[in-house]
Amino acid sequence: MFSFEIISAQGQARAGVFSTPHGNLETPVFAPVGTQATVKTLTPAQLDDLGASLVLANTYHLYLRPGDDLVADMGGLHRFMQWPRPMLTDSGGYQVFSLAQTRKVDDDGVTFKSHIDGSTHRFTPEKSIQIQEHLGADIIMAFDECSDPNDHEYSKTAMERTHRWAERSLNAKERSDQALFGIIQGGVDPGLRAVSAQFIASLPFPGIAIGGLSIGETKQEMHATLDLVNRLLPENKPRYLMGVGTPEDLINGISRGVDIFDCVLPTRLARHNAAFSSEGRLNLMNATFARDQRPIDEACQCYTCQTFTRAYLRHLIVAKELLAGTLLSIHNLHALIQLVKDIRVSIIDNTFKSKVAAWLLNWHGNAERTKIY
Amino acid sequence: MFSFEIISAQGQARAGVFSTPHGNLETPVFAPVGTQATVKTLTPAQLDDLGASLVLANTYHLYLRPGDDLVADMGGLHRFMQWPRPMLTDSGGYQVFSLAQTRKVDDDGVTFKSHIDGSTHRFTPEKSIQIQEHLGADIIMAFDECSDPNDHEYSKTAMERTHRWAERSLNAKERSDQALFGIIQGGVDPGLRAVSAQFIASLPFPGIAIGGLSIGETKQEMHATLDLVNRLLPENKPRYLMGVGTPEDLINGISRGVDIFDCVLPTRLARHNAAFSSEGRLNLMNATFARDQRPIDEACQCYTCQTFTRAYLRHLIVAKELLAGTLLSIHNLHALIQLVKDIRVSIIDNTFKSKVAAWLLNWHGNAERTKIY
Repeated sequence: MFSFEIISAQGQARAGVFSTPHGNLETPVFAPVGTQATVKTLTPAQLDDLGASLVLANTYHLYLRPGDDLVADMGGLHRFMQWPRPMLTDSGGYQVFSLAQTRKVDDDGVTFKSHIDGSTHRFTPEKSIQIQEHLGADIIMAFDECSDPNDHEYSKTAMERTHRWAERSLNAKERSDQALFGIIQGGVDPGLRAVSAQFIASLPFPGIAIGGLSIGETKQEMHATLDLVNRLLPENKPRYLMGVGTPEDLINGISRGVDIFDCVLPTRLARHNAAFSSEGRLNLMNATFARDQRPIDEACQCYTCQTFTRAYLRHLIVAKELLAGTLLSIHNLHALIQLVKDIRVSIIDNTFKSKVAAWLLNWHGNAERTKIY
Repeated sequence: MFSFEIISAQGQARAGVFSTPHGNLETPVFAPVGTQATVKTLTPAQLDDLGASLVLANTYHLYLRPGDDLVADMGGLHRFMQWPRPMLTDSGGYQVFSLAQTRKVDDDGVTFKSHIDGSTHRFTPEKSIQIQEHLGADIIMAFDECSDPNDHEYSKTAMERTHRWAERSLNAKERSDQALFGIIQGGVDPGLRAVSAQFIASLPFPGIAIGGLSIGETKQEMHATLDLVNRLLPENKPRYLMGVGTPEDLINGISRGVDIFDCVLPTRLARHNAAFSSEGRLNLMNATFARDQRPIDEACQCYTCQTFTRAYLRHLIVAKELLAGTLLSIHNLHALIQLVKDIRVSIIDNTFKSKVAAWLLNWHGNAERTKIY
């Protein structure tokens, strides 16, 4: 049911096709995040228009609200939110570790309090897989523990737990129409990362995720980790860099062999009135845009840039009109999705290496890396 | 540039075509309200999809923010908000009288404080027309004073002022590509209403609005006023019932010769999680919808009803996702626009009289009349 074919490669960069029950996923791909079974402010029709293929949803949030059993009763996530193409759910691990005010990890799992009502819940690898089977995404994730990358001792403990939980996640899985990806941890320690990459690669996962990055390490550390990990991973499995990133991160990640990305940055920036552009990140609330008749980015083909001026977008922001968030989300998501599509084409026609420097330069002003959940 | 042709009539109900610089407007028509140059939460593409033709914007709001001079510099309202079809602006009169915390009326105009920053401003008929000429809608309104319908003395004073201001509005008008409509006032007093209808009809307005209704009078009073006024108005000018209304109000208004309606109700209800339906008004936050796989209204052809379940809409509302407001706005606007289109077809094929009772019955559960600005 799942197969991954690399149709072209240039250096470490790969263009592939991952087949799923909801259609072929062309990689590299950037996935918008639909935390609560909706990519914030956008209809599925708008997502489709802007070229989205893979959409991510969050297990932690959907487990709490509306409940994975309700989603299952409504026919699963695809039908519930009416997204007909491939979907991915995370394991809930990262969000439990980062969001929950109080949580207690043990070797069996993690007990935490809901951010909604303070009620107590417990996730184990088996529970995470059960929830993800209820949700029904095409790609699901093993339960893992994400550590502070600069805390070597904790990174080692968390990595070892992640490995045991990876095996338990595999054993817990019952549905055959979902691809379970394993997750590599190990912080920024090359030794730990190598051990983790080799261990996860040795298990029968159809795809492999790189966790624990873009959460406080330097760019150099992220790049070194990707270089190391990607050398150790098998060629024939898709590689997913979780929670990344900025335009520059995508270019750098693809150069280092990554196939799949997701990040809330485009929609989160939109809610903060910010837009990606080749001039750098723009804050559309800025008074200098009050009478600016240009689109956000003159080279952009998205609905927002093809239709509206910066002056109008600024007016919507100043007048607190929600349409601003919708229009900026369309632009920011389109920018990343289209960038990755352009890169894919360049890998196929063997021009990636000659274009990568220009892309990095073009998107440099959007470089601040922020992991926002 | 402006002409109104009645292509069919049944009883007092008329089907017509009003030609404007932005295309022919088929009447009767329901206009969504885009207060601040945006119909809240919807893109122009979505408005177009749901069948909108005429869109209203508010002079008071746009004068304060972003300023009518800015809109003019940006090419006018159509270009600024990218609505290519006919537009209408109100005169600002109603909103100044109802919204402004402190305002002082004299025979020359009204002085008021901005609801945004408390700054002092003054509208006169001349100023209102100037602002509306800057905004550039196809249909603009004479400056009027809206009175408490049950206060006879004030209704008389306000009506007389409205008449003098109607003449001054006509004299102030300079652009030839905008149709200036006069406004009838007079509260619910038949004598005043008759005087006002005859006076406004005697002036060279290409269209006539009925103001001061749906603001506290009974349904019977509204219907009696419409019956009276429409008997006195010339056949060959479009009639616009301002700020109305509910599905029942539209059916009753068309039966009494009204051609144009606008109301914020559909988008306002959407923000309060409510939807029009043939079962009556539904509050989608209700727990009974948690696992309801039906659309809001099984007979509805809008994107929301063709795509999403009540269960999903309720989830979005409970999870405080903005997409809920967008999807409910699409449904509520489509419901009124389609109802009026269906009525238009029935007037043309001479079935209106045989269908009107069924329509009133079908929409009865949505009857609460609320004028919300």
